[in-house]
Amino acid sequence: MLWVEDVLRYADTDANGHINNSTFSVLCESGRVHLFTQELNPTLPPGMFFVIARLAIDFRAELHYPGQVRTGTWITRIGRSSLGLAQAIVADGRVAGEAECVCVLIDERTRRASPFSHETKVAAERLLLTPSA
Amino acid sequence: MLWVEDVLRYADTDANGHINNSTFSVLCESGRVHLFTQELNPTLPPGMFFVIARLAIDFRAELHYPGQVRTGTWITRIGRSSLGLAQAIVADGRVAGEAECVCVLIDERTRRASPFSHETKVAAERLLLTPSA
Amino acid sequence: MLWVEDVLRYADTDANGHINNSTFSVLCESGRVHLFTQELNPTLPPGMFFVIARLAIDFRAELHYPGQVRTGTWITRIGRSSLGLAQAIVADGRVAGEAECVCVLIDERTRRASPFSHETKVAAERLLLTPSA
Amino acid sequence: MLWVEDVLRYADTDANGHINNSTFSVLCESGRVHLFTQELNPTLPPGMFFVIARLAIDFRAELHYPGQVRTGTWITRIGRSSLGLAQAIVADGRVAGEAECVCVLIDERTRRASPFSHETKVAAERLLLTPSA
Repeated sequence: MLWVEDVLRYADTDANGHINNSTFSVLCESGRVHLFTQELNPTLPPGMFFVIARLAIDFRAELHYPGQVRTGTWITRIGRSSLGLAQAIVADGRVAGEAECVCVLIDERTRRASPFSHETKVAAERLLLTPSA
Repeated sequence: MLWVEDVLRYADTDANGHINNSTFSVLCESGRVHLFTQELNPTLPPGMFFVIARLAIDFRAELHYPGQVRTGTWITRIGRSSLGLAQAIVADGRVAGEAECVCVLIDERTRRASPFSHETKVAAERLLLTPSA
Repeated sequence: MLWVEDVLRYADTDANGHINNSTFSVLCESGRVHLFTQELNPTLPPGMFFVIARLAIDFRAELHYPGQVRTGTWITRIGRSSLGLAQAIVADGRVAGEAECVCVLIDERTRRASPFSHETKVAAERLLLTPSA
Repeated sequence: MLWVEDVLRYADTDANGHINNSTFSVLCESGRVHLFTQELNPTLPPGMFFVIARLAIDFRAELHYPGQVRTGTWITRIGRSSLGLAQAIVADGRVAGEAECVCVLIDERTRRASPFSHETKVAAERLLLTPSA
């Protein structure tokens, strides 16, 4: 599992006095981009990139400013050209949000899904955590 | 179904050159808050408010700056103290995103879910669109 | 003077209950980018682009959600390779903010300021409003 | 001088590939809010709060994702009911932005500027750095 740290900002708050729910998407993206740039993008041929197809967030607790959060990201499913990812947003020792997302490898020229190379699959498998694991 | 209009901003773009996916959450919230403040909140007793428990977004197409988007919101399920909502984000005549979310009515004092009053249920039923409808 | 319209978003609010001051920067940018893409960028040779060197905002009134704002942008000074711009953010018939900014034309290869062509100057002069005008 | 640390986010980038200029405002606010909540707000009578009247940012260098930034904030002028603040945004050992702002103490009831108490002045003086210092 890969972890990134983020710092909450006053601009993340909303009129409810807590961190706005859209910030959870931003934190998920921090974790996701870190995983791709560190682990998977180095295995991609030129002109290939990942896009997000679906993001589902379960809001478990409010986040408050000021504060720091850690977002953990791992891979739950490796398909032919798509990945399932899961994430946990943790603040003050408790899970504030859980997320699942689907990302698809796209070929820049055709703008269509492209199957993973062997090298990408191997890199993804290193981050694969199955529910039974 | 209730519609709100939003204007995309240059600050919504990201290094991929398109509108960042977190903006989809922001647009969904615009639609949701409009539905609550216009239709449901006037039926709530003091000290009651809706929170979001889950948000799932399917990204169907990229959004680009500059541009305008319309977000349509409707109710798909009325529970005891929670609502299912669905949303469509439309730009240039095509659906860029679809979302489903679960919102729960909370009692400010107890911080727990609170059952809907008859009046809130009636207001919610006016915005209920079932899949077969 | 060029005007753009923006729609305020719930995510723009902060814990003070009003629109966060950083949103004023975002609105100024909407106006600025519109002016550049519509009026000046078509006159630029390839590899040239404008960057912002300074932004000063005077906050005149709070902005509140929900609402719409109009941002007017005009040119106050045309230098050798830099422009002075002024902006007004208007909501509900009153000025919520006034801004001044300095933008510089940059050559992508050298990353240095580059003097305006005659064509760019002519285009800029069409948007020049001097204080006495 | 007070320092806060922030983490840049992928959502802070824009179509130019760097951190959007509006993020500089957000970082300045992080530093400002920290100074107020830690140092000055504890000296305020109930119903008093600071608002920002003017913010001027000089953009010295681009910021890039991923990265961390430190924002230093100090007081440059103590008026009757307003403060002058200065800020520096530092990343990778260089100053990416400098800012000056004016903040005014407001009385919630009258919505007008309110003079500082002796206690607030003393607290502000501890953070006062004059140019000659």
